[in-house]
Amino acid sequence: MKSLKMALIVQKFGGTSVGSVERIRAVAERVTASHRTGHQVVVVVSAMSGETDRLLQLARALADAPAERELDTLLSTGEQVTIALLSMALESIGQPAISFTGGQVAIMTDSAHTRARIEHIDDHKIRAALDAGKIVVVAGFQGVDPHGNITTLGRGGSDTTAVALAAALHADECDIFTDVDGIYTTDPRVESRARRLDRITFEEMLEMASLGAKVLQTRSVEFAMKYHVPVRVLSSFQDGPGTLVTNEENSVEAPRVSGIAFSRNEAKITVVGVPDHPGIAYAILGPISAANINVDVILQNVSEAGKTDFTFTVERNDFAKTQGILQGVARELGAEDVRGDTHIVKVSVVGVGMRSHAGIAATMFETLARENINIQMISTSEIKISVVIEEKYLELAVRALHAAFALDGEVPA
Amino acid sequence: MKSLKMALIVQKFGGTSVGSVERIRAVAERVTASHRTGHQVVVVVSAMSGETDRLLQLARALADAPAERELDTLLSTGEQVTIALLSMALESIGQPAISFTGGQVAIMTDSAHTRARIEHIDDHKIRAALDAGKIVVVAGFQGVDPHGNITTLGRGGSDTTAVALAAALHADECDIFTDVDGIYTTDPRVESRARRLDRITFEEMLEMASLGAKVLQTRSVEFAMKYHVPVRVLSSFQDGPGTLVTNEENSVEAPRVSGIAFSRNEAKITVVGVPDHPGIAYAILGPISAANINVDVILQNVSEAGKTDFTFTVERNDFAKTQGILQGVARELGAEDVRGDTHIVKVSVVGVGMRSHAGIAATMFETLARENINIQMISTSEIKISVVIEEKYLELAVRALHAAFALDGEVPA
Repeated sequence: MKSLKMALIVQKFGGTSVGSVERIRAVAERVTASHRTGHQVVVVVSAMSGETDRLLQLARALADAPAERELDTLLSTGEQVTIALLSMALESIGQPAISFTGGQVAIMTDSAHTRARIEHIDDHKIRAALDAGKIVVVAGFQGVDPHGNITTLGRGGSDTTAVALAAALHADECDIFTDVDGIYTTDPRVESRARRLDRITFEEMLEMASLGAKVLQTRSVEFAMKYHVPVRVLSSFQDGPGTLVTNEENSVEAPRVSGIAFSRNEAKITVVGVPDHPGIAYAILGPISAANINVDVILQNVSEAGKTDFTFTVERNDFAKTQGILQGVARELGAEDVRGDTHIVKVSVVGVGMRSHAGIAATMFETLARENINIQMISTSEIKISVVIEEKYLELAVRALHAAFALDGEVPA
Repeated sequence: MKSLKMALIVQKFGGTSVGSVERIRAVAERVTASHRTGHQVVVVVSAMSGETDRLLQLARALADAPAERELDTLLSTGEQVTIALLSMALESIGQPAISFTGGQVAIMTDSAHTRARIEHIDDHKIRAALDAGKIVVVAGFQGVDPHGNITTLGRGGSDTTAVALAAALHADECDIFTDVDGIYTTDPRVESRARRLDRITFEEMLEMASLGAKVLQTRSVEFAMKYHVPVRVLSSFQDGPGTLVTNEENSVEAPRVSGIAFSRNEAKITVVGVPDHPGIAYAILGPISAANINVDVILQNVSEAGKTDFTFTVERNDFAKTQGILQGVARELGAEDVRGDTHIVKVSVVGVGMRSHAGIAATMFETLARENINIQMISTSEIKISVVIEEKYLELAVRALHAAFALDGEVPA
């Protein structure tokens, strides 16, 4: 960022970063500093932390299932309050600024209330304000449909707003300010030798995020990847270069593995002794999917005597619901039993370098074997290998793999 | 209201009436009842009580003089929250409803942020929703300027929104729900025999309001008068006919006086011994007016030996500021002294019947004389006579006049 001259930068601050009058003032000073180095700055903000929950509570007190159009009208006030306050704070320190709601920009979306998708962004008003020397403050999370109805993008949608604005404005960079100072090789709470990555690819970021290292909303990463928007993850509370997320692959000297991701939010279910005939996967997973439950790793054992075991994982909070659905399904299929296990976790090695390096899987399995950790399920993609293991081995597995793939170290100078 | 068939009614509920989830639910039931009798209903709501102050506090913590455009963007969220919650509440009891912000309607205003004036209201969306059988819930107090900026109409602006909507929609009636059950002949806290008026004219209402009996915002009354919108003042918390405010004058049997108004918010200032030459009124009042201070009653004594005393009243909270301004002015004019008195009040008899009845002033002065109340200043208009008296006589004067003009009584059946 420091090397950019007269760049256009989008900076996004989440609810914690604007959670009080003092923090809003700090954000005002931070974005003013960026503006003074000669950059044009568009700021995207979320609702002050706690505000969305407060509004939801009011809504739920009035209606069990609040009308979604009205829910969007209600929740969008959260960001509207923040844009007004931040703009006031900027003007009060002598920095010309102007706020825009999603509708004022306009950020055009479809009409799917509470989960709208951005279809088009009009950049006229923003460009005019930037050219007039103003910092532009835009409400995240919200838009407007073709009929003038207020829409929201769903929780975490402010990241998507920031990236979409950066794409529409052909911004040089989209800075996402968070409560961490970048993306790490693994969770520092599990492995203290985890180190911040200077760079990571969008694909790696997606694997890291969906595997539990949640920093950026998945949809916003997909958006950034699609529109080639360089995204930088930075800390709201301290200076530092953060982690740049881009389409560029690492250099030839890049490590094969970028990080070790893990997820505790896993549960395993096995349908035991299912008569093995075509269509059982659909018969079992169809009703689960219909109930809006995401299935992750799937394993079907080799058939023995015309019967097979069918195993899959779901998010742990979907476990009870999934078991309930399967009772009936298993009876209909003539299965012997349905067994569940909530004491499992998923550990993954992630890295675009895998594509061109053989032996990652071998190293992973060898490392786990040396620590006497039994692998229950395996799932692979081009840039990650995941294993399901017993929960008690999580920390041991993460640390062993972090060392095995030479990720240990200090934050580079 | 009960006699109207298939009428279009605008109903306005202030901040106290929508101050909690329970009260919003009560409003939902109330407007649904109106709708079920066959009326088309447009509801105008204010921010939940306390919300505007909460937002103002945040703004003032960030800026001594918050940018007015941003203040409007901030404060308008208050009503937006209420329209969404009320619409949810309506839908949850099976009553189709839809909310509109000022911008969504659109209620077009000029660009005078924090004190905008309504210039035009587009009735398309509201009509379509009404015709579809919905109750339409509109945010009071706010509008949008031709550039898409959010504007507000100033405190109490929700009354103006309601009346303006009623005018634009040619509504049959505009019901203003308040914390009182109508307009009284005087303040019942001062005279327990005060009684609710069934009807009052706009002109009387303006005199009553500006003299301290504040129930309706003055601008909204002017608006209703101009566009011939019948306004009914009703209680949010109990049933009753309220008071109908219309252009129609009372019948021939109407009393000469409709009510006794009073104001404690008065202060008197006398510039003593001013050399009496043309232009002294302007020399004294010009700087007061320039400081945005409203002068009310003005009295210039007969000149003696080329010198005169010049007396006028201002609102009590402007007293110190006015005195400060006058120190310099009095010196320049060669006046002998500037004297002030904050222990005065204004008491007025109001009634359109005065136009055609002689002797009102005589009765008023005689009544006060009988009670040994000294009149310090007198001001008259076509439909009111005001006197400035010592503060300690306020209750005595109001009760004596209330009786003298035959206003005592019970609420009519």
